[in-house]
Amino acid sequence: IVAVEELSKQGCSVTVSDLYAMQFEPRATRNDIVGCLHNSEVFNYGVETREAYKRGELSSDLIEEQKKVQEADLLIFQFPLYWFSMPAIMKGWMDRVLIEGFAFQFPDCYTSSLLKNKLALFSFTTGGSQETYTKGGISGDIRYLLWPMQHGIMHFCGVKVLAPHICFAPEYVSEEERKKMLLAWAQRLKTLWKEEPIDCSPEWYFK
Amino acid sequence: IVAVEELSKQGCSVTVSDLYAMQFEPRATRNDIVGCLHNSEVFNYGVETREAYKRGELSSDLIEEQKKVQEADLLIFQFPLYWFSMPAIMKGWMDRVLIEGFAFQFPDCYTSSLLKNKLALFSFTTGGSQETYTKGGISGDIRYLLWPMQHGIMHFCGVKVLAPHICFAPEYVSEEERKKMLLAWAQRLKTLWKEEPIDCSPEWYFK
Repeated sequence: IVAVEELSKQGCSVTVSDLYAMQFEPRATRNDIVGCLHNSEVFNYGVETREAYKRGELSSDLIEEQKKVQEADLLIFQFPLYWFSMPAIMKGWMDRVLIEGFAFQFPDCYTSSLLKNKLALFSFTTGGSQETYTKGGISGDIRYLLWPMQHGIMHFCGVKVLAPHICFAPEYVSEEERKKMLLAWAQRLKTLWKEEPIDCSPEWYFK
Repeated sequence: IVAVEELSKQGCSVTVSDLYAMQFEPRATRNDIVGCLHNSEVFNYGVETREAYKRGELSSDLIEEQKKVQEADLLIFQFPLYWFSMPAIMKGWMDRVLIEGFAFQFPDCYTSSLLKNKLALFSFTTGGSQETYTKGGISGDIRYLLWPMQHGIMHFCGVKVLAPHICFAPEYVSEEERKKMLLAWAQRLKTLWKEEPIDCSPEWYFK
């Protein structure tokens, strides 16, 4: 909500996909393809959705989300960290919306992939404290778990990534502290357009 | 199927959760709690499921899966790698089944956590070739993406992890090669009980 308000104030056009409110379907199944299958003997989700995308026969919820991505310059993914990753409902968005032909194409993955002029930002809350997510901490450097999301998904599709925005353990801090966290986020959003994307190399994650 | 046959032959009792066939629900919502909420003003999924677990009021599909986990010595997760991770339907299994009080308890996470006498094995297929998943390859060392799943989920719950079983790009190899892959898996399963778990430290992943 802070992000929508702040970005709107700046004159940005903001589109929200509230996945839970939409009861977004996370499961990748045959239902994502309208009409006949390309290969009716062996069902291969990747092949079938690629072909359905070409024919314009993906299910309407996917077409809808792809339009939003197409029109966006910046994608902000806001979520609570669940098991070192995004919640299943958001993972389902990645699995189902980022279809071959729409989001990537072989062999031009990574830098020259189909969504190459877009930016993404992962904004999330954690259960554990910041100390647990350090190199010597029990959960390891927080960057380790950003690799599959930022590199494996976004960079793969050509999307450049801004530094993540992480609120550590908001459940366990005072109301005061939580307000500060929101304020800091609003503050960052004011000058987001000035930020440079992070370096795409493995060194950013594992140095 | 190979795993079920091979392990059954050895006299193991094998229970399968075929998530797609079960139409397993991946979304973590209020529906996972039967009856009243602990805090009816602010819905916190972690708190509510922890309390519902104590009261025995989790939804029946979750209780069912938890029973299977409880009875198992070894958990094998078989899936196609989607976006450097498991498909959303399986992520939903992790999000919803591995509830506080059942799978972990503060502050004894990791080595002394609640599922500490169990083993897990991630067995998956990839789209990309083995060369892309190396330290110098565009997708980085395959171990980087194992971190959230093996360390962030399994080790967190106290589960020890056997070396992953990875079939690289089965779609792009000959029928002959695919048969060899299945045979190698069946072969490995014969002596699985002799294997030692991998080292739990970050060095295993990022050395």
